[in-house]
Amino acid sequence: MKKINGTITAPKGFKAAGVKAGIKKSGKEDVAVIYSTSPAAAAGVFTLNTMAAAPVIVSRQVAELGRAAAIVVNSGCANACNGQQGLADAREMAAVAAGLLGIQAEEVFVASTGIIGVNLPMDKLAGGIKKAVAELAEAGGVKASQAILTTDTFAKSCAYEFALGGVPVRIAGIAKGSGMIHPNMATMLSFITTDAAIDASLLKQALTAAVDVSFNMVSVDGDTSTNDMVAVLANGVAGNPLISQADGNYQIFAAALRQVCTELAKLVARDGEGATKFLEITVRGAASFAEAKQAAMTVAKSPLVKTAFFGQDPNWGRIICAIGYSGAQAAPEKTAMAIGNIPIVEQGMGISYDEQALKAVMAEHDITVTVDLGAGTAEATVWSCDFSYEYVKINGEYHT
Amino acid sequence: MKKINGTITAPKGFKAAGVKAGIKKSGKEDVAVIYSTSPAAAAGVFTLNTMAAAPVIVSRQVAELGRAAAIVVNSGCANACNGQQGLADAREMAAVAAGLLGIQAEEVFVASTGIIGVNLPMDKLAGGIKKAVAELAEAGGVKASQAILTTDTFAKSCAYEFALGGVPVRIAGIAKGSGMIHPNMATMLSFITTDAAIDASLLKQALTAAVDVSFNMVSVDGDTSTNDMVAVLANGVAGNPLISQADGNYQIFAAALRQVCTELAKLVARDGEGATKFLEITVRGAASFAEAKQAAMTVAKSPLVKTAFFGQDPNWGRIICAIGYSGAQAAPEKTAMAIGNIPIVEQGMGISYDEQALKAVMAEHDITVTVDLGAGTAEATVWSCDFSYEYVKINGEYHT
Repeated sequence: MKKINGTITAPKGFKAAGVKAGIKKSGKEDVAVIYSTSPAAAAGVFTLNTMAAAPVIVSRQVAELGRAAAIVVNSGCANACNGQQGLADAREMAAVAAGLLGIQAEEVFVASTGIIGVNLPMDKLAGGIKKAVAELAEAGGVKASQAILTTDTFAKSCAYEFALGGVPVRIAGIAKGSGMIHPNMATMLSFITTDAAIDASLLKQALTAAVDVSFNMVSVDGDTSTNDMVAVLANGVAGNPLISQADGNYQIFAAALRQVCTELAKLVARDGEGATKFLEITVRGAASFAEAKQAAMTVAKSPLVKTAFFGQDPNWGRIICAIGYSGAQAAPEKTAMAIGNIPIVEQGMGISYDEQALKAVMAEHDITVTVDLGAGTAEATVWSCDFSYEYVKINGEYHT
Repeated sequence: MKKINGTITAPKGFKAAGVKAGIKKSGKEDVAVIYSTSPAAAAGVFTLNTMAAAPVIVSRQVAELGRAAAIVVNSGCANACNGQQGLADAREMAAVAAGLLGIQAEEVFVASTGIIGVNLPMDKLAGGIKKAVAELAEAGGVKASQAILTTDTFAKSCAYEFALGGVPVRIAGIAKGSGMIHPNMATMLSFITTDAAIDASLLKQALTAAVDVSFNMVSVDGDTSTNDMVAVLANGVAGNPLISQADGNYQIFAAALRQVCTELAKLVARDGEGATKFLEITVRGAASFAEAKQAAMTVAKSPLVKTAFFGQDPNWGRIICAIGYSGAQAAPEKTAMAIGNIPIVEQGMGISYDEQALKAVMAEHDITVTVDLGAGTAEATVWSCDFSYEYVKINGEYHT
């Protein structure tokens, strides 16, 4: 598998565009269209929030159908908590794009992100979709990756090439994150394109597995949004033999999809609102993967841990404390913990360490924390960031 | 039940002291002793953190015994994650006090709060205990309430008088909270004294019930500490007929204990680190009390909700979003929400409201949020506070 330049239009048969429709107060790009020139197998993973937004409800139906040809996204307005009107607007969003593209509305994923409880400005949105469809191009991927952002500080994108049965295929993805990033899912949108040929049911299986170890392992602030989704289109234009069973080619494809999701998920954590640190937290020695994840996520979510890293304060007691209330089984007398490569806790007790060396580790931007619970053999890694003054500032002020 | 002036020495037969032992870097009071001149029935509720600190392990045994005559507390050092040495130190802490007071070490509750992973400075601590025992007095309750504080900005205390079988009895309590306040429990210490006569098993029952609807309903930052405990001594000096069954007098006593715990718990939330707002969050229409509490606590813990209140931003979507990912059953089309007395959401949708009136509510220090899930009849109320720049500052810097 080879990392390549390019974004969601790197796989064959995809065009994209990102335009300014006037929905965002900032006046930046706020409508994106991603289009597959051939009908594609489709799959999606959606928020588990019981207050799921209208576009999530509409897109779930597209995913159930298992095929799609386009994805339409707006930022600046979440179209959540808008009742029947919201649902009608989300359906209209799909219909407008479908009409312009000459496809069925049932084949259009829709996604929205931004403020909750405000109706979509349908005139502006329709104008934006029209403009975006007119501008669809292989060079439009970058603009599309920008149009889905909210408080993100940079566009998140990656692309890979690999071979399936000797045929070169490509896979690429974009994501937005920043606020409310937390598993299952967070105001986290990701759209993935591939020119591989694969059955929709296997595509769904591979996506679910990939999301479990990538997007669901990211926490910025513990909040999980009404609007999150990851959608993938596989149009088969590369011409590889169709993947129709969980064989070797399926494993290769699944690994590539997992790579794309993991890379995007880490970029999302890296760009958490106000983040000054990127934290990789690994919990080992757990009784199960679920408990390892639970313990790592509890550390990742703890405001006390997050503020300590912001202050470059090696207050390791907060990490051990979070492990202790995570609910994961742990053997206190066997618990170990290291920050970077410096052992800090062994057998449940603080040990002496080189203070200058630890200070240097805490001053880095990327910091790893490794905990051994001494209760089993399972392991999980999650990605997170610190809590800064800037986080409070961003979220204590009105914004879209 | 009548609120009275005074603190933990208001009930008959109690003396207390708070002294400076040099454990806290700030040089403030850091050792407290509370002493009952008559042996007392005793009960405790302790942290569920698997990394429970040494004093918690020692005090659990006292609570199991069901009787005690003293409580010794230090601030500035948590004596957590110190292995066998920590346990030996906690036992020594009880033994030193017992020796000076002429009681058994098994009758002494010990509690510590402060930094994790540092051994207790036993010389300073022993000196402090000696000094405190020498200063024990009915007037010493206020100093004791100060000596248990860490980053708290004020001492938390209350006292009540009521009658049991025609006999006037008193109950009083002190608490410390501030950082890491979250149920089950948080670096939250509370010590309650009463001159009522009650069986230890009923005292335990009343305490558990009281803590469930008071201290366990408070969230400052979602972290639950290694050191939390609530302990109560009931010395019977008031002379009421012994409460030995769950009769009417038991109900009266339990209500008084609940009142003390609730008042202290609210003071703890009010004094959350860096707090500029006191939030009372009520969730109604839940399928069960557990789900109502879960939903309310999820709102209370959400950093996005907390920063919105800090910024006086009525970003109600964040509240609905938190309800949605709380895991509590909700009927989105029936969900309603109000901030103060202003309805904001009805039938799952934002409704129009008087923006000036809402702005005035958001500018208050004390703010109520009421959510109806439309899924049942159960209800729960939790108390919380906002997240401010000051919270990040306090926790991003070294402190004891």
